[in-house]
Amino acid sequence: MSKEPSITRILIDALKPRDVTIVEIARSLISLDRISRVEINVAEVDVRTETLKINIAGSNIDLKEVEKILEKHATVIRSIDYVVAEK
Amino acid sequence: MSKEPSITRILIDALKPRDVTIVEIARSLISLDRISRVEINVAEVDVRTETLKINIAGSNIDLKEVEKILEKHATVIRSIDYVVAEK
Amino acid sequence: MSKEPSITRILIDALKPRDVTIVEIARSLISLDRISRVEINVAEVDVRTETLKINIAGSNIDLKEVEKILEKHATVIRSIDYVVAEK
Amino acid sequence: MSKEPSITRILIDALKPRDVTIVEIARSLISLDRISRVEINVAEVDVRTETLKINIAGSNIDLKEVEKILEKHATVIRSIDYVVAEK
Amino acid sequence: MSKEPSITRILIDALKPRDVTIVEIARSLISLDRISRVEINVAEVDVRTETLKINIAGSNIDLKEVEKILEKHATVIRSIDYVVAEK
Amino acid sequence: MSKEPSITRILIDALKPRDVTIVEIARSLISLDRISRVEINVAEVDVRTETLKINIAGSNIDLKEVEKILEKHATVIRSIDYVVAEK
Amino acid sequence: MSKEPSITRILIDALKPRDVTIVEIARSLISLDRISRVEINVAEVDVRTETLKINIAGSNIDLKEVEKILEKHATVIRSIDYVVAEK
Repeated sequence: MSKEPSITRILIDALKPRDVTIVEIARSLISLDRISRVEINVAEVDVRTETLKINIAGSNIDLKEVEKILEKHATVIRSIDYVVAEK
Repeated sequence: MSKEPSITRILIDALKPRDVTIVEIARSLISLDRISRVEINVAEVDVRTETLKINIAGSNIDLKEVEKILEKHATVIRSIDYVVAEK
Repeated sequence: MSKEPSITRILIDALKPRDVTIVEIARSLISLDRISRVEINVAEVDVRTETLKINIAGSNIDLKEVEKILEKHATVIRSIDYVVAEK
Repeated sequence: MSKEPSITRILIDALKPRDVTIVEIARSLISLDRISRVEINVAEVDVRTETLKINIAGSNIDLKEVEKILEKHATVIRSIDYVVAEK
Repeated sequence: MSKEPSITRILIDALKPRDVTIVEIARSLISLDRISRVEINVAEVDVRTETLKINIAGSNIDLKEVEKILEKHATVIRSIDYVVAEK
Repeated sequence: MSKEPSITRILIDALKPRDVTIVEIARSLISLDRISRVEINVAEVDVRTETLKINIAGSNIDLKEVEKILEKHATVIRSIDYVVAEK
Repeated sequence: MSKEPSITRILIDALKPRDVTIVEIARSLISLDRISRVEINVAEVDVRTETLKINIAGSNIDLKEVEKILEKHATVIRSIDYVVAEK
């Protein structure tokens, strides 16, 4: 465990359009330096959107960076349901 | 864990005709280089089709390759329900 | 894990007559070279038949061989519900 | 695991009279050479009988021997619900 | 595991008066040589009595000895629900 | 495990006034020599009282000592639901 | 385990305004010396507030310090549901 206190887990509830695949989103997120693992679960499927549970693990995760990536995929953060900070 | 960021798990919801067995599909998918493990579960049985949950593990999984294999077995991807990316 | 891609797990839903015991079936199946473990669960009991869940583990399992063994015990495969392929 | 294929687990559903204790039955069964562990659970209690789930582990378990022991305790096998064969 | 076949676990359903504490019963039972662990759970509470689940582990447990101890605490065995024999 | 038979776990159902915090109670209990771990769960909240499940682990736990500590915090033992004795 | 008896886990039920993110709260809490891990779960979402379950692990946790941090984020402790003390 790094001595520096840092955010190591975030669970994000997000909404994406149906024509974007979760594989593309996962590939973009994992390219961020501080992220080591990304798990995306399709929680709900509606006519035009899908609700995602995005589980991100890493060290010193930067929420702003994550938000920018999701915006590129027309995906909106609805809430942050869970977070872990460690040192 | 390989340093290269890569898709290591995909859960696919697919529809296959009843005369194709999941053993044939599993055998074809496992022959792809980047795939190390394939798990296929018959989730639902209808008159002419069966709904499959295809759980694929590997390193740097290529969704296009997977789609081609499934097409050979007249099997259609309905959605991608879960994905993991790691590095 | 053997480098050769192979079927290592099959879950079979089968129907057997009531006068055949699952001990006899298990003993016959385990005698096949490529099979290392057989688990048989009686899922349902009807007047003349019993529904079995036959969980077979091994390496490079041959479905044809398994079918022949079951036929000797007047047992019919209804469906293959689950399969794992590995390498 | 012994190279010889053998029955290593059997789950028996049996019916015993209420004046026989499961401790006596367990003590008799464990005295059989090939049996290493016996677990008996009282699943149901009726006016004159109790339904038992008898879980037997061992190597090369002989069903005939088990039946003889149970008969000595006026206990009848109703069905064999689960079996494992290994090598 | 001792080579001698022996009863190593018994689960007893018993009835005790409310003014006896399960701590006293546990202390008496653990003083028996062959018993290594005693777990007592209060399953039900009635006006004058409490139903106990007494889980006893040891080697070569002697049911008669256990019964005598419980009698000293005015506690009656209603049934033996589970037993394990090993060697 | 100490050779001396001893009470190593007690689960107490207790009632405390709302103005006493479970942190104070836990701090007092852990100061007792024979206690190594204290877990307090608020099971129910009423207008003036809270029902606690106090899970105490240690070696040779003395129930009298525990009762004295709880009395200092105006907390009353309603029942002892679970106990473990070991040697 | 430090020989000094100390509070090592606290589960807090708290209420925060919707415009404060749990990431900010987690980052502030983890900066406290004695805290090694903070887990925040959004249990309920109302029009103006969110109910949080804040799970704090550390050594010799000081509740006063925690309260001060939460106040800075306009977050109110409603109850302490669970505590562990160890030595």
